[in-house]
Amino acid sequence: MNQSRLDRVAANMDAQGLSQIIVSSTASVYYLTGFWVEPMERMLALLIRADGRCTLFANELFGLSPQPGLELILHTDSDDPTARLSDELLPGKLGVDKAWPSKFLIGVLDRRGDVTPVLGSAPVDDARKFKDPDEIAAMRAASLINDRVVEGAISALTEGVREDEIAALVESLYRENGADRSAEGQLVCFGPNGADPHHAPGAAVISAGDSVVLDLFTPIRRYWCDMTRTVFFRRADGEHRRVYEAVRAANLTAEAVIRPGVPMCDIDRAARSVIEDAGYGKYFTHRLGHGCGLDCHEPPDNSSASTVPAQPGMVFSVEPGIYLPGRLGVRIEDLVLVTEDGCEVLNKASKDFRIV
Amino acid sequence: MNQSRLDRVAANMDAQGLSQIIVSSTASVYYLTGFWVEPMERMLALLIRADGRCTLFANELFGLSPQPGLELILHTDSDDPTARLSDELLPGKLGVDKAWPSKFLIGVLDRRGDVTPVLGSAPVDDARKFKDPDEIAAMRAASLINDRVVEGAISALTEGVREDEIAALVESLYRENGADRSAEGQLVCFGPNGADPHHAPGAAVISAGDSVVLDLFTPIRRYWCDMTRTVFFRRADGEHRRVYEAVRAANLTAEAVIRPGVPMCDIDRAARSVIEDAGYGKYFTHRLGHGCGLDCHEPPDNSSASTVPAQPGMVFSVEPGIYLPGRLGVRIEDLVLVTEDGCEVLNKASKDFRIV
Repeated sequence: MNQSRLDRVAANMDAQGLSQIIVSSTASVYYLTGFWVEPMERMLALLIRADGRCTLFANELFGLSPQPGLELILHTDSDDPTARLSDELLPGKLGVDKAWPSKFLIGVLDRRGDVTPVLGSAPVDDARKFKDPDEIAAMRAASLINDRVVEGAISALTEGVREDEIAALVESLYRENGADRSAEGQLVCFGPNGADPHHAPGAAVISAGDSVVLDLFTPIRRYWCDMTRTVFFRRADGEHRRVYEAVRAANLTAEAVIRPGVPMCDIDRAARSVIEDAGYGKYFTHRLGHGCGLDCHEPPDNSSASTVPAQPGMVFSVEPGIYLPGRLGVRIEDLVLVTEDGCEVLNKASKDFRIV
Repeated sequence: MNQSRLDRVAANMDAQGLSQIIVSSTASVYYLTGFWVEPMERMLALLIRADGRCTLFANELFGLSPQPGLELILHTDSDDPTARLSDELLPGKLGVDKAWPSKFLIGVLDRRGDVTPVLGSAPVDDARKFKDPDEIAAMRAASLINDRVVEGAISALTEGVREDEIAALVESLYRENGADRSAEGQLVCFGPNGADPHHAPGAAVISAGDSVVLDLFTPIRRYWCDMTRTVFFRRADGEHRRVYEAVRAANLTAEAVIRPGVPMCDIDRAARSVIEDAGYGKYFTHRLGHGCGLDCHEPPDNSSASTVPAQPGMVFSVEPGIYLPGRLGVRIEDLVLVTEDGCEVLNKASKDFRIV
């Protein structure tokens, strides 16, 4: 158990009035125990009590061993994994990890009518929002690699190339640079495809005048990088340039307002106002960004609905975009680390208007 | 909506006493609607009532359009997605998809004290257990590709090769053969690493006398293939051969007993008895197999705890193994399709004892 992280979680539980929580996400269990387990349909549940006592309920196939400060209760594929867990619960409120599969929660509720489930991710999520020095070093290193990978991808934009060929190149560049896993889900979008913020790379061939959106993310030594750059192939018209400069100004404006105490919704507003003033407000169809760390998307939410103030140690994305259906998309995304007096932009790759 | 599949789901709901269910898994929503959505932390929930009326609650970022027979209710990142859903629920029992993130279930329970959650995946899972002709064709095609890929990987076992190089080759072979996504999670295990059923491929270099476990799985046109072959590098001793032949006999014995009406636990027992009789019972540490289709692991469970009878149209894995810690692992896995009078083994790659 990482005792200093556990202490912060226990303090958060106390402040939030939670005397018991179930932590189940792969990343949160890793954050506290150092065990990286992807349980698929099997159960992984770390029960933390207010006094800091921890019990991990795990399938024996995960191959875990006990460690100081952590009781381990194993089950097999033939057991009902919620039986032993239910025995250990106190009556009353039970904080539950937001993504715990409902089948386990229903199993607990069937056995323990005296337990009331409430959302219980916040004690760990709130701790994870504040990256410690080891985490900051890992995230800086991952984003530096991402800067190199995006430049490699931009260099490969030549006549006749397909989106999926660029995606495969990104994959191999990540692999050479020590990514933990394949770069599944990279977004490489040519021309009108860039207007769909979630377009998957396909057989589209690049054309002169295409915007090229490269949204690249992968975990490297467990911590995610995530950035987007947009360039234009061979030529760009006036609208391309206007859209690009509006997005760039939104990105830079948002990064300039970040400092401790500024609520996330104000950061989102700063970017959105720039795009609205440029006349493209209704084409910026998503939130400004998301926290990033052991998960690619984690708290804090960086949106109009998020009143969380920025605080030193937080890392999140700043990714305004404009999407003109059937024509083009532009998005510029950095990860930023909130510092004592502003923010450090972890991505250094150029954001200049580029025709390649 | 796929009406014939929906009709089967509605009939299952009726038989199971469920008047409303929430379907949330990517594969199950695809099965019924044809929409493939990976919602990550966002909400995707298909509400099905007993009368067959369907409403899909989805984040607008998923880019979905209404279709005949399906009402679409969109939310944004700034909305609480459970609000509109809660409005639509009837009092009483609500069947809930087993993997629906607890945060949404808790959101519903907070609003609707008159709703009682019960496990509600069975109506769709029970329909999905029986593959229709299109699905069977897709799974045959995927397993034939897997046969070729495993032979390609075996051909690449040469002096000095590393596990992760074989894994990368598998990845590229899948890609050439039309896999939907990267082959994340392939198991390539040399020697003692094969004794860990979930060992991830690493920098281990092959040695003469190693068992080589190749457990290869990926979705191809949405349907998964999943097979394991074990070969020996350069030489094998008497124990290698004894272990291998016990596993092979267990695999063949299990496949021979499969026919409609035989409960899954009896199939598991048939394989397990062979391994117990060979003296390795305690080294066969997992269930015999799992259903496979749109998900790699789906019902029916093929284990000692599963009394589900095999029925025509079911596809599941048969994967006995023996794991001698610190020494070697052997696993042989096929996907099988239950037929009217037995089973069709979808994998054709050789199961002979092989030294390469």
